[in-house]
Amino acid sequence: MNNLPAKPTVSVCLSPSLLHLYDVKNSIIVIIDVLRATSTIAAALYNGAKSVIPVESVAECIEMGKQMEVITAGERDGKIAEGLKYGNSPLQYSQAFIKNKTLVLTTTNGTKLLHMALTAGARGIITGSFCNLNSVCDYLLREYTHVILACAGWKDRVNIEDTLLAGAVCSKLNDKFIMDCDAAKIAAVLYANAKDNLYEFLKKQNASHFIRLAKYQLEADIRYSLSENNANVLCIYDKGRLIAGKG
Amino acid sequence: MNNLPAKPTVSVCLSPSLLHLYDVKNSIIVIIDVLRATSTIAAALYNGAKSVIPVESVAECIEMGKQMEVITAGERDGKIAEGLKYGNSPLQYSQAFIKNKTLVLTTTNGTKLLHMALTAGARGIITGSFCNLNSVCDYLLREYTHVILACAGWKDRVNIEDTLLAGAVCSKLNDKFIMDCDAAKIAAVLYANAKDNLYEFLKKQNASHFIRLAKYQLEADIRYSLSENNANVLCIYDKGRLIAGKG
Repeated sequence: MNNLPAKPTVSVCLSPSLLHLYDVKNSIIVIIDVLRATSTIAAALYNGAKSVIPVESVAECIEMGKQMEVITAGERDGKIAEGLKYGNSPLQYSQAFIKNKTLVLTTTNGTKLLHMALTAGARGIITGSFCNLNSVCDYLLREYTHVILACAGWKDRVNIEDTLLAGAVCSKLNDKFIMDCDAAKIAAVLYANAKDNLYEFLKKQNASHFIRLAKYQLEADIRYSLSENNANVLCIYDKGRLIAGKG
Repeated sequence: MNNLPAKPTVSVCLSPSLLHLYDVKNSIIVIIDVLRATSTIAAALYNGAKSVIPVESVAECIEMGKQMEVITAGERDGKIAEGLKYGNSPLQYSQAFIKNKTLVLTTTNGTKLLHMALTAGARGIITGSFCNLNSVCDYLLREYTHVILACAGWKDRVNIEDTLLAGAVCSKLNDKFIMDCDAAKIAAVLYANAKDNLYEFLKKQNASHFIRLAKYQLEADIRYSLSENNANVLCIYDKGRLIAGKG
């Protein structure tokens, strides 16, 4: 027997409906909702937001806005949710707008999955996007423990862009971690096919959410959300809120 | 308005745990369990079996063996299930062995998914494998209605080989059908990467079930199950059993 410690594993969970199959308790969970929740979270924290509080319902978001001085934002089905002033566009959260402020955010898929991971007793939770890809990978390499890359998808359906980000992380962790499930390998192959031009790949594939957002003239959001490391900050969940961690 | 009928859709369901997200009632469901249930079913029917009766439990399988003259077979976790004489190897079901006989089969993933589709009220059910790929596609093109390619996976986890078969079918139906979900597009990209040599692709990717079966010296089964159209028969579910349909 050698005394080398076993490599930790990296798994990819392609839909919130599959999370129960994974060992959440012993893993760091990376919440992935590329278009657009986790890209928006990265943008807000990168541009100096004090914290981002993810909440599940629009009602909860509105209520928190009444009780404390925060920016309430969120979307349902890709549009600004009724009763909220701001949406889920990463481009909205410039330094001039968000610095030193607290953002309360609710989204269709990403915030729901974050709360599922929390309820399931995740060892740690961070959020991941192309915007903060390197910070995510550096953190995982530093922590060097089991990882689940959890894709938010769209209403529990698998989507291309979240799978691509999972594949990007797998590719960067490769060799140092064991890719523990076929979904991780599928994601890595997909990313290898797409990495030269993520935008064109999504367009060519007619990715479902790409079409949905393009319909609302949100191409700029899509381009921002597919740019690697343009808001390169670690977004770490701690006591009910996401804060910028040591990147 | 033009009077052309709308194209039907083809969706890919990557795990039994996601089946509830799809419109099962209005679709033909293709059950996919490449290693090895649906390859074995194709081999048995191609070689003249009267029918294959898929049952969920080993106990049920044994009980049917007592009541009628049938061959009882099945596996649990990749090995012949206790109490059954035959396993889930497609190579076992030669013409000399299976012609004019009835096979009662229970497997870890495939037969379970078939019963889920049945319970959910599928409009029609067939089984698909590389062994009968063309028969599957010809049938779907002839029926020309909505299709769900349902991957059995491994204990609800996504696997590569079932995703590859789904991708192969999507590629062949392309243009005539609308690929309705991102999972279909992911499967098609994966198949495009693998199609030149499916065996080498699975080996290179260290596909989880490939490793599991290789451990039991079942490489010959794997090679058979990855060969296109070597048991090219339509396997159609009708009144509790799978029979050879018009290919």
